[in-house]
Amino acid sequence: MGVGGAAHFADRLVDAVGRKGASLCVGLDPDPALMPEGVGVAEFCRGIVDAVASVAVAVKPQSAFFEAQGREGWATLADVCEYARDAGLLVIADAKRGDVPSTARAYAAAFAPLADAVTVNPYLGYDSLESFFAQDGLGVFVLVKTSNPGGVDLQDLPLAEGRPLWQHVAGLVDQWGADLVGACGLSSVGAVVGATFPQEVAEARQLLPRSVLLLPGVGAQGARAPDLAAAFTVGPAGGIVTASRSVIYADRGVGWQEAAAAEAERLAGELRAVAVAG
Amino acid sequence: MGVGGAAHFADRLVDAVGRKGASLCVGLDPDPALMPEGVGVAEFCRGIVDAVASVAVAVKPQSAFFEAQGREGWATLADVCEYARDAGLLVIADAKRGDVPSTARAYAAAFAPLADAVTVNPYLGYDSLESFFAQDGLGVFVLVKTSNPGGVDLQDLPLAEGRPLWQHVAGLVDQWGADLVGACGLSSVGAVVGATFPQEVAEARQLLPRSVLLLPGVGAQGARAPDLAAAFTVGPAGGIVTASRSVIYADRGVGWQEAAAAEAERLAGELRAVAVAG
Repeated sequence: MGVGGAAHFADRLVDAVGRKGASLCVGLDPDPALMPEGVGVAEFCRGIVDAVASVAVAVKPQSAFFEAQGREGWATLADVCEYARDAGLLVIADAKRGDVPSTARAYAAAFAPLADAVTVNPYLGYDSLESFFAQDGLGVFVLVKTSNPGGVDLQDLPLAEGRPLWQHVAGLVDQWGADLVGACGLSSVGAVVGATFPQEVAEARQLLPRSVLLLPGVGAQGARAPDLAAAFTVGPAGGIVTASRSVIYADRGVGWQEAAAAEAERLAGELRAVAVAG
Repeated sequence: MGVGGAAHFADRLVDAVGRKGASLCVGLDPDPALMPEGVGVAEFCRGIVDAVASVAVAVKPQSAFFEAQGREGWATLADVCEYARDAGLLVIADAKRGDVPSTARAYAAAFAPLADAVTVNPYLGYDSLESFFAQDGLGVFVLVKTSNPGGVDLQDLPLAEGRPLWQHVAGLVDQWGADLVGACGLSSVGAVVGATFPQEVAEARQLLPRSVLLLPGVGAQGARAPDLAAAFTVGPAGGIVTASRSVIYADRGVGWQEAAAAEAERLAGELRAVAVAG
Protein backbone atom coordinates (compact mmCIF):
# COMPACT_ATOMS: atom_id res chain seq x y z
CA MET A 1 0.00 0.00 0.00
CA GLY A 2 1.26 3.48 -0.81
CA VAL A 3 1.70 5.83 2.13
CA GLY A 4 -1.79 7.02 2.93
CA GLY A 5 -2.97 5.77 -0.46
CA ALA A 6 -4.90 2.98 -2.07
CA ALA A 7 -3.75 -0.62 -2.00
CA HIS A 8 -1.83 -1.85 -5.03
CA PHE A 9 -4.17 -2.86 -7.84
CA ALA A 10 -2.67 -6.31 -8.35
CA ASP A 11 -2.88 -7.06 -4.64
CA ARG A 12 -6.54 -6.11 -4.63
CA LEU A 13 -7.09 -8.29 -7.68
CA VAL A 14 -5.38 -11.28 -6.07
CA ASP A 15 -7.60 -10.82 -3.03
CA ALA A 16 -10.76 -10.62 -5.17
CA VAL A 17 -9.83 -13.70 -7.21
CA GLY A 18 -9.18 -15.57 -3.95
CA ARG A 19 -12.66 -14.70 -2.72
CA LYS A 20 -14.52 -15.30 -5.98
CA GLY A 21 -12.52 -18.29 -7.21
CA ALA A 22 -12.29 -17.14 -10.84
CA SER A 23 -10.77 -14.15 -12.58
CA LEU A 24 -13.83 -13.19 -14.59
CA CYS A 25 -14.65 -9.67 -15.77
CA VAL A 26 -17.91 -8.68 -17.40
CA GLY A 27 -17.81 -5.91 -19.98
CA LEU A 28 -20.49 -3.24 -19.73
CA ASP A 29 -21.21 -2.19 -23.33
CA PRO A 30 -24.71 -0.73 -22.99
CA ASP A 31 -26.02 -0.47 -26.55
CA PRO A 32 -29.68 0.65 -26.70
CA ALA A 33 -30.10 -1.32 -29.95
CA LEU A 34 -29.30 -4.55 -28.11
CA MET A 35 -30.64 -3.89 -24.61
CA PRO A 36 -33.98 -5.19 -23.36
CA GLU A 37 -36.81 -2.93 -24.46
CA GLY A 38 -37.79 -0.19 -22.05
CA VAL A 39 -34.68 -0.52 -19.91
CA GLY A 40 -32.43 2.55 -19.62
CA VAL A 41 -28.64 2.49 -19.71
CA ALA A 42 -28.13 3.10 -16.00
CA GLU A 43 -30.82 0.60 -15.00
CA PHE A 44 -29.39 -1.99 -17.39
CA CYS A 45 -25.84 -1.61 -16.07
CA ARG A 46 -27.00 -1.78 -12.44
CA GLY A 47 -29.00 -4.89 -13.29
CA ILE A 48 -25.97 -6.57 -14.83
CA VAL A 49 -23.84 -5.62 -11.83
CA ASP A 50 -26.43 -7.19 -9.51
CA ALA A 51 -26.56 -10.30 -11.69
CA VAL A 52 -22.81 -10.96 -11.84
CA ALA A 53 -21.44 -9.49 -8.59
CA SER A 54 -21.26 -12.84 -6.81
CA VAL A 55 -19.11 -14.55 -9.46
CA ALA A 56 -17.17 -11.81 -11.29
CA VAL A 57 -14.17 -9.96 -9.85
CA ALA A 58 -14.58 -6.93 -12.06
CA VAL A 59 -16.73 -5.09 -14.55
CA LYS A 60 -15.31 -3.22 -17.52
CA PRO A 61 -17.49 -0.28 -18.52
CA GLN A 62 -16.68 0.75 -22.09
CA SER A 63 -16.61 4.55 -22.14
CA ALA A 64 -17.75 4.76 -25.78
CA PHE A 65 -21.25 3.53 -24.98
CA PHE A 66 -21.67 6.14 -22.27
CA GLU A 67 -20.30 8.95 -24.44
CA ALA A 68 -22.75 7.89 -27.15
CA GLN A 69 -25.53 8.71 -24.67
CA GLY A 70 -24.74 12.39 -25.06
CA ARG A 71 -24.87 15.10 -22.41
CA GLU A 72 -25.75 12.83 -19.48
CA GLY A 73 -23.47 9.99 -20.54
CA TRP A 74 -20.50 10.86 -18.37
CA ALA A 75 -22.66 11.18 -15.26
CA THR A 76 -24.16 7.77 -16.01
CA LEU A 77 -20.66 6.31 -16.35
CA ALA A 78 -19.71 7.78 -12.96
CA ASP A 79 -22.89 6.39 -11.38
CA VAL A 80 -22.35 2.91 -12.82
CA CYS A 81 -18.74 2.84 -11.64
CA GLU A 82 -19.79 3.84 -8.14
CA TYR A 83 -22.58 1.26 -8.08
CA ALA A 84 -20.20 -1.52 -9.15
CA ARG A 85 -17.60 -0.60 -6.54
CA ASP A 86 -20.30 -0.52 -3.86
CA ALA A 87 -21.19 -4.06 -4.98
CA GLY A 88 -17.62 -5.16 -4.24
CA LEU A 89 -16.46 -5.29 -7.85
CA LEU A 90 -13.28 -3.85 -9.25
CA VAL A 91 -13.94 -1.37 -12.07
CA ILE A 92 -11.74 -1.42 -15.17
CA ALA A 93 -12.57 1.67 -17.25
CA ASP A 94 -12.13 0.60 -20.86
CA ALA A 95 -11.14 3.96 -22.30
CA LYS A 96 -8.01 3.21 -24.37
CA ARG A 97 -6.76 6.75 -23.86
CA GLY A 98 -3.34 8.02 -24.85
CA ASP A 99 -2.23 11.60 -25.43
CA VAL A 100 0.61 14.08 -25.02
CA PRO A 101 1.80 14.57 -21.41
CA SER A 102 -0.18 17.71 -20.51
CA THR A 103 -3.37 16.04 -21.77
CA ALA A 104 -2.51 12.64 -20.29
CA ARG A 105 -2.47 14.27 -16.86
CA ALA A 106 -6.08 15.39 -17.42
CA TYR A 107 -7.14 11.89 -18.53
CA ALA A 108 -5.49 10.33 -15.50
CA ALA A 109 -7.28 12.83 -13.28
CA ALA A 110 -10.56 12.02 -15.03
CA PHE A 111 -10.37 8.25 -14.58
CA ALA A 112 -8.55 7.74 -11.27
CA PRO A 113 -11.59 8.73 -9.17
CA LEU A 114 -13.94 6.51 -11.20
CA ALA A 115 -12.09 3.25 -11.61
CA ASP A 116 -9.63 0.79 -10.11
CA ALA A 117 -7.89 0.37 -13.46
CA VAL A 118 -7.97 1.85 -16.94
CA THR A 119 -6.98 0.72 -20.43
CA VAL A 120 -4.53 2.90 -22.39
CA ASN A 121 -3.07 3.03 -25.90
CA PRO A 122 0.75 2.96 -26.33
CA TYR A 123 1.07 4.66 -29.76
CA LEU A 124 2.27 7.94 -28.20
CA GLY A 125 4.93 6.28 -26.04
CA TYR A 126 6.01 6.36 -22.41
CA ASP A 127 5.50 10.05 -21.68
CA SER A 128 1.85 9.70 -22.72
CA LEU A 129 1.26 7.01 -20.08
CA GLU A 130 3.40 7.91 -17.09
CA SER A 131 0.63 10.06 -15.54
CA PHE A 132 -1.50 6.91 -15.34
CA PHE A 133 1.35 4.82 -13.91
CA ALA A 134 1.89 7.50 -11.23
CA GLN A 135 -1.70 7.36 -9.89
CA ASP A 136 -1.55 5.71 -6.50
CA GLY A 137 -3.27 2.32 -6.56
CA LEU A 138 -4.46 2.55 -10.18
CA GLY A 139 -4.04 -0.45 -12.46
CA VAL A 140 -3.12 0.34 -16.06
CA PHE A 141 -3.65 -2.06 -18.94
CA VAL A 142 -1.66 -1.13 -22.03
CA LEU A 143 -2.94 -2.33 -25.40
CA VAL A 144 -0.44 -4.84 -26.74
CA LYS A 145 -2.24 -7.28 -29.07
CA THR A 146 -5.90 -6.48 -29.53
CA SER A 147 -8.76 -8.90 -30.15
CA ASN A 148 -10.06 -7.40 -33.42
CA PRO A 149 -9.01 -8.73 -36.86
CA GLY A 150 -7.69 -5.30 -37.91
CA GLY A 151 -5.23 -5.27 -35.03
CA VAL A 152 -2.73 -6.97 -37.32
CA ASP A 153 -2.49 -3.84 -39.52
CA LEU A 154 0.04 -2.27 -37.15
CA GLN A 155 0.57 -4.73 -34.31
CA ASP A 156 1.86 -7.59 -36.47
CA LEU A 157 4.20 -5.47 -38.60
CA PRO A 158 7.66 -7.06 -38.54
CA LEU A 159 10.29 -4.77 -37.05
CA ALA A 160 13.88 -4.57 -38.23
CA GLU A 161 14.88 -6.16 -34.90
CA GLY A 162 13.13 -9.32 -36.10
CA ARG A 163 9.90 -9.52 -34.14
CA PRO A 164 6.44 -8.02 -34.66
CA LEU A 165 5.59 -4.62 -33.19
CA TRP A 166 3.29 -6.06 -30.51
CA GLN A 167 6.11 -8.12 -29.03
CA HIS A 168 8.30 -5.01 -28.84
CA VAL A 169 5.44 -3.19 -27.11
CA ALA A 170 5.14 -6.12 -24.69
CA GLY A 171 8.81 -5.64 -23.82
CA LEU A 172 8.22 -1.93 -23.18
CA VAL A 173 5.23 -2.70 -20.95
CA ASP A 174 7.36 -5.11 -18.95
CA GLN A 175 9.98 -2.36 -18.43
CA TRP A 176 7.38 0.30 -17.61
CA GLY A 177 5.89 -1.90 -14.90
CA ALA A 178 9.13 -3.22 -13.41
CA ASP A 179 9.16 -0.75 -10.50
CA LEU A 180 5.44 -1.05 -9.79
CA VAL A 181 5.21 -4.61 -8.50
CA GLY A 182 2.89 -5.30 -5.57
CA ALA A 183 3.31 -7.66 -2.62
CA CYS A 184 1.76 -10.41 -4.75
CA GLY A 185 4.59 -10.20 -7.28
CA LEU A 186 2.45 -8.75 -10.07
CA SER A 187 2.78 -5.22 -11.43
CA SER A 188 0.10 -2.54 -11.59
CA VAL A 189 1.06 -2.19 -15.27
CA GLY A 190 -0.71 -4.92 -17.20
CA ALA A 191 -1.35 -5.67 -20.85
CA VAL A 192 -4.39 -6.14 -23.06
CA VAL A 193 -3.98 -9.27 -25.16
CA GLY A 194 -6.92 -10.50 -27.22
CA ALA A 195 -8.24 -13.85 -26.04
CA THR A 196 -8.98 -14.43 -29.73
CA PHE A 197 -5.22 -15.14 -30.17
CA PRO A 198 -4.36 -17.97 -27.73
CA GLN A 199 -0.85 -18.51 -29.13
CA GLU A 200 -0.08 -14.83 -28.64
CA VAL A 201 -1.48 -14.99 -25.10
CA ALA A 202 1.10 -17.67 -24.34
CA GLU A 203 3.87 -15.62 -25.95
CA ALA A 204 2.77 -12.50 -24.05
CA ARG A 205 2.95 -14.42 -20.77
CA GLN A 206 6.61 -15.20 -21.54
CA LEU A 207 7.40 -11.57 -22.41
CA LEU A 208 5.46 -10.15 -19.47
CA PRO A 209 6.18 -12.37 -16.46
CA ARG A 210 5.04 -9.72 -13.95
CA SER A 211 1.96 -8.41 -15.76
CA VAL A 212 -1.70 -9.19 -15.36
CA LEU A 213 -3.10 -9.94 -18.82
CA LEU A 214 -6.52 -8.47 -19.58
CA LEU A 215 -8.04 -10.93 -22.06
CA PRO A 216 -11.08 -9.61 -23.95
CA GLY A 217 -12.86 -11.41 -26.73
CA VAL A 218 -14.42 -14.41 -25.00
CA GLY A 219 -17.93 -15.08 -26.29
CA ALA A 220 -19.20 -12.80 -29.06
CA GLN A 221 -15.71 -12.41 -30.57
CA GLY A 222 -15.21 -16.18 -30.54
CA ALA A 223 -12.52 -16.83 -27.93
CA ARG A 224 -12.84 -19.66 -25.37
CA ALA A 225 -11.68 -19.59 -21.76
CA PRO A 226 -10.08 -23.08 -21.83
CA ASP A 227 -7.59 -21.87 -24.47
CA LEU A 228 -6.17 -19.25 -22.11
CA ALA A 229 -4.43 -21.42 -19.49
CA ALA A 230 -1.02 -19.93 -20.29
CA ALA A 231 -2.07 -16.60 -18.79
CA PHE A 232 -2.47 -18.25 -15.39
CA THR A 233 0.95 -19.89 -15.07
CA VAL A 234 1.92 -17.03 -12.74
CA GLY A 235 -1.13 -17.58 -10.54
CA PRO A 236 -4.91 -17.37 -10.62
CA ALA A 237 -4.81 -13.56 -10.94
CA GLY A 238 -2.37 -13.65 -13.87
CA GLY A 239 -5.20 -13.10 -16.32
CA ILE A 240 -8.57 -11.38 -16.30
CA VAL A 241 -10.89 -13.07 -18.76
CA THR A 242 -13.41 -10.60 -20.11
CA ALA A 243 -16.72 -11.34 -21.78
CA SER A 244 -19.13 -8.60 -22.74
CA ARG A 245 -21.93 -9.17 -25.24
CA SER A 246 -22.21 -12.94 -24.64
CA VAL A 247 -23.03 -12.25 -20.99
CA ILE A 248 -24.95 -8.99 -20.97
CA TYR A 249 -27.09 -9.85 -24.00
CA ALA A 250 -27.46 -13.56 -23.20
CA ASP A 251 -31.22 -12.94 -23.23
CA ARG A 252 -32.85 -9.73 -24.36
CA GLY A 253 -36.30 -10.45 -22.95
CA VAL A 254 -37.66 -10.29 -19.43
CA GLY A 255 -35.15 -12.89 -18.25
CA TRP A 256 -32.10 -10.76 -19.09
CA GLN A 257 -30.71 -10.61 -15.57
CA GLU A 258 -31.10 -14.33 -14.89
CA ALA A 259 -29.56 -15.15 -18.28
CA ALA A 260 -26.57 -12.87 -17.63
CA ALA A 261 -26.08 -14.43 -14.19
CA ALA A 262 -26.23 -17.94 -15.66
CA GLU A 263 -23.74 -17.20 -18.45
CA ALA A 264 -21.36 -15.48 -16.00
CA GLU A 265 -21.57 -18.50 -13.67
CA ARG A 266 -20.91 -20.86 -16.59
CA LEU A 267 -17.82 -18.88 -17.64
CA ALA A 268 -16.60 -18.66 -14.05
CA GLY A 269 -16.87 -22.44 -13.83
CA GLU A 270 -14.78 -22.85 -16.97
CA LEU A 271 -12.24 -20.41 -15.61
CA ARG A 272 -11.89 -22.13 -12.26
CA ALA A 273 -10.89 -25.28 -14.12
CA VAL A 274 -8.45 -23.34 -16.35
CA ALA A 275 -6.74 -21.46 -13.54
CA VAL A 276 -6.31 -24.64 -11.48
CA ALA A 277 -4.80 -26.38 -14.50
CA GLY A 278 -2.57 -23.34 -15.21
CA MET B 1 -21.90 16.73 -50.73
CA GLY B 2 -23.33 13.36 -49.79
CA VAL B 3 -26.95 12.75 -50.79
CA GLY B 4 -28.96 14.59 -48.17
CA GLY B 5 -25.88 14.81 -45.98
CA ALA B 6 -23.26 17.24 -44.83
CA ALA B 7 -20.72 18.81 -47.15
CA HIS B 8 -17.32 17.13 -47.36
CA PHE B 9 -15.06 18.19 -44.50
CA ALA B 10 -12.13 19.20 -46.69
CA ASP B 11 -14.40 21.31 -48.90
CA ARG B 12 -15.75 23.11 -45.84
CA LEU B 13 -12.18 23.65 -44.62
CA VAL B 14 -11.07 25.08 -47.96
CA ASP B 15 -14.03 27.45 -47.85
CA ALA B 16 -13.21 28.55 -44.29
CA VAL B 17 -9.53 29.10 -45.07
CA GLY B 18 -10.57 31.16 -48.08
CA ARG B 19 -12.71 33.37 -45.89
CA LYS B 20 -10.29 33.70 -42.95
CA GLY B 21 -7.07 33.80 -44.93
CA ALA B 22 -5.12 31.47 -42.64
CA SER B 23 -5.48 27.85 -41.59
CA LEU B 24 -5.24 28.44 -37.85
CA CYS B 25 -6.85 26.25 -35.19
CA VAL B 26 -6.94 27.09 -31.51
CA GLY B 27 -6.86 24.22 -29.04
CA LEU B 28 -9.31 24.37 -26.15
CA ASP B 29 -7.51 22.72 -23.23
CA PRO B 30 -9.39 24.22 -20.27
CA ASP B 31 -7.20 23.48 -17.24
CA PRO B 32 -8.54 25.11 -14.04
CA ALA B 33 -4.96 25.33 -12.73
CA LEU B 34 -4.03 27.62 -15.63
CA MET B 35 -7.30 29.45 -16.32
CA PRO B 36 -8.00 33.00 -15.08
CA GLU B 37 -9.22 32.97 -11.50
CA GLY B 38 -12.97 32.83 -11.02
CA VAL B 39 -13.71 31.84 -14.61
CA GLY B 40 -15.50 28.52 -15.17
CA VAL B 41 -14.66 26.02 -17.92
CA ALA B 42 -17.67 26.79 -20.11
CA GLU B 43 -17.28 30.55 -19.69
CA PHE B 44 -13.57 30.33 -20.45
CA CYS B 45 -14.10 28.29 -23.62
CA ARG B 46 -16.85 30.60 -24.86
CA GLY B 47 -14.58 33.57 -24.16
CA ILE B 48 -11.76 32.04 -26.20
CA VAL B 49 -14.17 31.26 -29.05
CA ASP B 50 -15.34 34.87 -29.06
CA ALA B 51 -11.74 36.08 -29.01
CA VAL B 52 -10.47 33.99 -31.93
CA ALA B 53 -13.54 33.44 -34.13
CA SER B 54 -12.62 36.18 -36.60
CA VAL B 55 -9.14 34.82 -37.37
CA ALA B 56 -9.22 31.06 -36.68
CA VAL B 57 -10.89 28.49 -38.93
CA ALA B 58 -11.35 25.93 -36.18
CA VAL B 59 -11.14 25.16 -32.52
CA LYS B 60 -9.92 21.85 -31.16
CA PRO B 61 -11.54 20.97 -27.83
CA GLN B 62 -9.45 18.36 -26.04
CA SER B 63 -11.89 15.87 -24.54
CA ALA B 64 -9.60 15.02 -21.61
CA PHE B 65 -10.04 18.41 -19.98
CA PHE B 66 -13.81 18.10 -20.13
CA GLU B 67 -13.80 14.53 -18.80
CA ALA B 68 -11.60 15.74 -15.94
CA GLN B 69 -14.49 18.03 -14.95
CA GLY B 70 -16.46 14.99 -13.84
CA ARG B 71 -20.19 14.39 -14.13
CA GLU B 72 -21.02 17.60 -16.02
CA GLY B 73 -17.94 17.51 -18.24
CA TRP B 74 -19.53 15.88 -21.26
CA ALA B 75 -22.44 18.32 -21.28
CA THR B 76 -19.95 21.19 -21.12
CA LEU B 77 -18.07 19.71 -24.09
CA ALA B 78 -21.31 19.50 -26.06
CA ASP B 79 -22.18 23.11 -25.17
CA VAL B 80 -18.75 24.40 -26.16
CA CYS B 81 -18.86 22.56 -29.49
CA GLU B 82 -22.27 24.01 -30.26
CA TYR B 83 -21.16 27.50 -29.28
CA ALA B 84 -18.11 27.30 -31.54
CA ARG B 85 -20.10 26.06 -34.52
CA ASP B 86 -22.64 28.84 -34.00
CA ALA B 87 -19.68 31.24 -34.14
CA GLY B 88 -18.81 29.93 -37.60
CA LEU B 89 -15.86 27.79 -36.51
CA LEU B 90 -15.16 24.21 -37.48
CA VAL B 91 -14.84 21.94 -34.44
CA ILE B 92 -12.13 19.29 -34.34
CA ALA B 93 -12.78 17.02 -31.35
CA ASP B 94 -9.36 15.96 -30.10
CA ALA B 95 -10.31 12.60 -28.68
CA LYS B 96 -7.69 10.20 -30.11
CA ARG B 97 -10.13 7.32 -29.90
CA GLY B 98 -9.58 3.87 -31.34
CA ASP B 99 -11.29 0.61 -30.41
CA VAL B 100 -12.67 -2.68 -31.72
CA PRO B 101 -15.40 -2.32 -34.38
CA SER B 102 -18.50 -2.67 -32.17
CA THR B 103 -17.09 -0.02 -29.83
CA ALA B 104 -15.79 2.18 -32.63
CA ARG B 105 -19.36 2.49 -33.89
CA ALA B 106 -20.36 3.91 -30.50
CA TYR B 107 -17.48 6.39 -30.52
CA ALA B 108 -18.35 7.54 -34.03
CA ALA B 109 -21.97 7.99 -32.94
CA ALA B 110 -20.79 9.97 -29.90
CA PHE B 111 -18.62 12.43 -31.80
CA ALA B 112 -20.34 12.89 -35.16
CA PRO B 113 -23.12 15.09 -33.71
CA LEU B 114 -20.65 17.24 -31.77
CA ALA B 115 -17.85 17.95 -34.19
CA ASP B 116 -16.83 18.52 -37.80
CA ALA B 117 -13.79 16.31 -37.38
CA VAL B 118 -12.23 14.03 -34.81
CA THR B 119 -8.75 12.70 -34.06
CA VAL B 120 -8.27 8.90 -33.87
CA ASN B 121 -5.49 6.46 -32.96
CA PRO B 122 -4.40 3.84 -35.54
CA TYR B 123 -2.93 1.17 -33.19
CA LEU B 124 -6.00 -1.10 -33.64
CA GLY B 125 -5.97 -0.91 -37.43
CA TYR B 126 -8.47 -0.21 -40.20
CA ASP B 127 -11.51 -1.96 -38.74
CA SER B 128 -11.24 0.24 -35.64
CA LEU B 129 -11.51 3.41 -37.75
CA GLU B 130 -13.87 2.63 -40.59
CA SER B 131 -16.95 3.69 -38.58
CA PHE B 132 -15.45 7.17 -38.39
CA PHE B 133 -14.58 7.23 -42.09
CA ALA B 134 -18.18 6.23 -42.90
CA GLN B 135 -19.77 9.20 -41.09
CA ASP B 136 -21.15 11.53 -43.73
CA GLY B 137 -19.21 14.80 -43.80
CA LEU B 138 -16.95 13.97 -40.82
CA GLY B 139 -13.24 14.70 -41.07
CA VAL B 140 -10.95 12.16 -39.44
CA PHE B 141 -7.37 12.89 -38.42
CA VAL B 142 -5.34 9.76 -37.80
CA LEU B 143 -2.34 10.02 -35.47
CA VAL B 144 0.77 9.46 -37.56
CA LYS B 145 3.73 11.27 -35.95
CA THR B 146 2.82 12.96 -32.68
CA SER B 147 4.30 16.13 -31.23
CA ASN B 148 5.46 14.72 -27.87
CA PRO B 149 9.05 13.51 -27.27
CA GLY B 150 7.81 10.02 -26.27
CA GLY B 151 6.17 9.54 -29.65
CA VAL B 152 9.47 8.08 -30.89
CA ASP B 153 9.05 5.03 -28.59
CA LEU B 154 6.78 3.33 -31.13
CA GLN B 155 6.43 5.68 -34.08
CA ASP B 156 10.13 5.80 -34.95
CA LEU B 157 10.76 2.05 -34.63
CA PRO B 158 12.43 0.83 -37.83
CA LEU B 159 10.35 -1.75 -39.67
CA ALA B 160 11.77 -4.71 -41.56
CA GLU B 161 10.58 -3.00 -44.75
CA GLY B 162 13.18 -0.30 -44.08
CA ARG B 163 11.25 2.71 -42.88
CA PRO B 164 9.98 3.82 -39.48
CA LEU B 165 6.53 2.77 -38.30
CA TRP B 166 5.06 6.27 -38.68
CA GLN B 167 5.87 6.34 -42.39
CA HIS B 168 4.12 3.01 -42.86
CA VAL B 169 1.11 4.42 -40.99
CA ALA B 170 1.21 7.45 -43.28
CA GLY B 171 0.97 5.09 -46.24
CA LEU B 172 -2.03 3.35 -44.70
CA VAL B 173 -3.75 6.68 -44.05
CA ASP B 174 -3.22 7.63 -47.68
CA GLN B 175 -4.88 4.37 -48.78
CA TRP B 176 -7.73 4.68 -46.27
CA GLY B 177 -8.58 8.16 -47.57
CA ALA B 178 -8.18 7.48 -51.28
CA ASP B 179 -11.90 7.04 -51.92
CA LEU B 180 -12.95 9.94 -49.71
CA VAL B 181 -11.62 12.89 -51.68
CA GLY B 182 -13.74 16.03 -51.90
CA ALA B 183 -14.28 18.44 -54.77
CA CYS B 184 -11.22 20.37 -53.57
CA GLY B 185 -8.95 17.38 -54.14
CA LEU B 186 -8.29 16.73 -50.47
CA SER B 187 -9.54 13.71 -48.54
CA SER B 188 -11.70 13.68 -45.41
CA VAL B 189 -9.06 11.37 -43.93
CA GLY B 190 -6.20 13.50 -42.67
CA ALA B 191 -3.17 12.94 -40.48
CA VAL B 192 -1.84 14.35 -37.23
CA VAL B 193 1.83 15.24 -37.62
CA GLY B 194 3.56 17.13 -34.82
CA ALA B 195 4.64 20.61 -35.86
CA THR B 196 7.55 19.99 -33.51
CA PHE B 197 9.09 17.83 -36.28
CA PRO B 198 9.32 20.07 -39.42
CA GLN B 199 11.39 17.54 -41.39
CA GLU B 200 8.77 14.86 -40.78
CA VAL B 201 6.01 17.30 -41.78
CA ALA B 202 7.72 17.64 -45.16
CA GLU B 203 8.09 13.87 -45.47
CA ALA B 204 4.45 13.35 -44.47
CA ARG B 205 3.35 15.77 -47.18
CA GLN B 206 5.13 13.56 -49.75
CA LEU B 207 3.55 10.37 -48.39
CA LEU B 208 0.08 11.91 -48.03
CA PRO B 209 -0.53 14.08 -51.09
CA ARG B 210 -4.32 14.11 -50.58
CA SER B 211 -4.45 14.57 -46.80
CA VAL B 212 -4.94 17.62 -44.67
CA LEU B 213 -2.19 17.62 -42.03
CA LEU B 214 -3.26 18.63 -38.53
CA LEU B 215 -0.15 20.20 -37.04
CA PRO B 216 -0.22 20.59 -33.25
CA GLY B 217 2.65 21.79 -31.13
CA VAL B 218 3.04 25.44 -32.14
CA GLY B 219 3.73 27.65 -29.14
CA ALA B 220 4.03 25.90 -25.76
CA GLN B 221 5.56 22.79 -27.32
CA GLY B 222 8.11 24.88 -29.22
CA ALA B 223 7.13 24.58 -32.88
CA ARG B 224 7.07 27.63 -35.18
CA ALA B 225 4.60 28.27 -38.00
CA PRO B 226 7.24 29.44 -40.53
CA ASP B 227 8.86 25.98 -40.41
CA LEU B 228 5.70 24.30 -41.71
CA ALA B 229 5.54 25.61 -45.28
CA ALA B 230 5.83 22.09 -46.74
CA ALA B 231 2.34 21.25 -45.47
CA PHE B 232 0.87 23.93 -47.73
CA THR B 233 2.36 22.88 -51.05
CA VAL B 234 -1.02 21.32 -51.91
CA GLY B 235 -2.86 24.55 -51.14
CA PRO B 236 -3.68 26.87 -48.24
CA ALA B 237 -5.90 24.23 -46.60
CA GLY B 238 -3.24 21.53 -46.79
CA GLY B 239 -2.36 22.03 -43.15
CA ILE B 240 -4.16 23.14 -40.01
CA VAL B 241 -1.72 24.76 -37.63
CA THR B 242 -2.83 24.30 -34.07
CA ALA B 243 -1.76 26.26 -31.02
CA SER B 244 -3.33 25.71 -27.62
CA ARG B 245 -1.68 26.91 -24.44
CA SER B 246 0.29 29.74 -26.07
CA VAL B 247 -2.98 31.30 -27.22
CA ILE B 248 -5.51 30.48 -24.53
CA TYR B 249 -3.14 31.20 -21.63
CA ALA B 250 -1.37 34.15 -23.28
CA ASP B 251 -2.49 36.18 -20.27
CA ARG B 252 -4.08 34.75 -17.16
CA GLY B 253 -5.29 38.04 -15.72
CA VAL B 254 -8.24 40.26 -16.61
CA GLY B 255 -6.91 40.76 -20.15
CA TRP B 256 -7.11 37.04 -21.05
CA GLN B 257 -9.52 37.46 -23.95
CA GLU B 258 -7.64 40.35 -25.53
CA ALA B 259 -4.32 38.51 -25.11
CA ALA B 260 -5.72 35.36 -26.74
CA ALA B 261 -7.11 37.40 -29.63
CA ALA B 262 -3.78 39.16 -30.11
CA GLU B 263 -1.75 35.94 -30.07
CA ALA B 264 -4.19 34.27 -32.49
CA GLU B 265 -3.93 37.27 -34.82
CA ARG B 266 -0.13 37.19 -34.63
CA LEU B 267 -0.08 33.47 -35.53
CA ALA B 268 -2.60 33.97 -38.31
CA GLY B 269 -0.35 36.67 -39.76
CA GLU B 270 2.65 34.30 -39.69
CA LEU B 271 0.54 31.61 -41.32
CA ARG B 272 -0.72 33.84 -44.12
CA ALA B 273 2.90 34.44 -45.08
CA VAL B 274 3.72 30.72 -44.87
CA ALA B 275 0.76 29.54 -46.93
CA VAL B 276 1.44 32.13 -49.64
CA ALA B 277 5.09 31.02 -49.77
CA GLY B 278 3.97 27.36 -49.85
